[in-house]
Amino acid sequence: MRSALCIVSGGMDSVTLAYDVRAVFRPDALHFMSFNYGQRHKKELDYATHHANKLGARLDLVDLSGLAYLLKGSALTDDSVEVPEGHYAEESMRATIVPNRNAMMLAIAYAAAVSLGAEVVAAGFHAGDHWVYPDCRPEFVDAFATMERLATESDIRLYTPWMNVQKSDIALRASELGVNLAESWSCYKGGDAHCGRCGTCVERIEAFQVAGITDPTAYEARA
Amino acid sequence: MRSALCIVSGGMDSVTLAYDVRAVFRPDALHFMSFNYGQRHKKELDYATHHANKLGARLDLVDLSGLAYLLKGSALTDDSVEVPEGHYAEESMRATIVPNRNAMMLAIAYAAAVSLGAEVVAAGFHAGDHWVYPDCRPEFVDAFATMERLATESDIRLYTPWMNVQKSDIALRASELGVNLAESWSCYKGGDAHCGRCGTCVERIEAFQVAGITDPTAYEARA
Repeated sequence: MRSALCIVSGGMDSVTLAYDVRAVFRPDALHFMSFNYGQRHKKELDYATHHANKLGARLDLVDLSGLAYLLKGSALTDDSVEVPEGHYAEESMRATIVPNRNAMMLAIAYAAAVSLGAEVVAAGFHAGDHWVYPDCRPEFVDAFATMERLATESDIRLYTPWMNVQKSDIALRASELGVNLAESWSCYKGGDAHCGRCGTCVERIEAFQVAGITDPTAYEARA
Repeated sequence: MRSALCIVSGGMDSVTLAYDVRAVFRPDALHFMSFNYGQRHKKELDYATHHANKLGARLDLVDLSGLAYLLKGSALTDDSVEVPEGHYAEESMRATIVPNRNAMMLAIAYAAAVSLGAEVVAAGFHAGDHWVYPDCRPEFVDAFATMERLATESDIRLYTPWMNVQKSDIALRASELGVNLAESWSCYKGGDAHCGRCGTCVERIEAFQVAGITDPTAYEARA
């Protein structure tokens, strides 16, 4: 019984990751874990659920919204902080840091993996995030895996295939796997369509452009 | 403004830790963080609250009880698993392992510490736990601190003063600091008094005996 646990937010990276894990590991059981950490909107989570159903995966939603007071000062969780517009790789994007988010999510995912007997924990961190988010860097991922080998006395593999690729490569991989990325959500705002102006929208638009793939996303505007 | 965050369960180790942190770091602001991870009873938490009030600390209770399904198979959270009796350092005590508990608690504590601007995160892990719990060992603590330096780009200190001492030394330190350990709870069961027979009760009794200190605890029976 081969089992894998994917952290799936419903964004294009993690949605593609789920299909990649299915293709690479061919697990008998696929688990999705999604997090509510008090983000402004839940649109991503609807897409996570959609793909869990499509893949026959069990989805566990971990509610950390009670911790939102801890995350004050991040534009993702605090309504008094404005969502920055412009390019992702800019100083202003530091406002979107939720402190220690990936360590929290991964630690909970590992607890579940031990309990489920999963051999793989997969996360969609990718190279384009390195500049802004320290907990998306390879050094962090390596240190985390080392820590968990000691904490759980297990050989659970931490699978982060996007670590050394660009977002355009993820768009290409999605295309290869036949994933419909219209069924994913990136925008930091929670409108009817992607705003087209916030950091992740700009990054998403760029990813399809660089990959040379038609962008299936509906945008309100383009920056 | 010097600020410290202590993980306080309400057991004798973490209660003593809080007073030790106050004495050693003399913080302007002391924060307690307690966890509800679906344990069978909440007696410890009452003592954590009691000492927070006594020390003028703010206590944040983090509710992870929604994760209890993850922790199936541990006697601490699963009613279908019997709480083992006998000496703490026995194979049977493995039934009390909650997978990855310390990594989860510490990761959340670090998120809070970043947000609060705390310089110290303190945890009461101690040497007597090493045999049974991999996430109470010095190698784990070192690896965790390394991981967090990368994840948070901070120099928050992970303070675990009981790492290389025995529980009897904690009893001695409590005595030195004038901490009344009758106001703490160890027993895995949730009776009116400590049962005196489960692993932590046996360990608690032994700690006072070895320290040569009068045990202020009321026990239902002695193993």
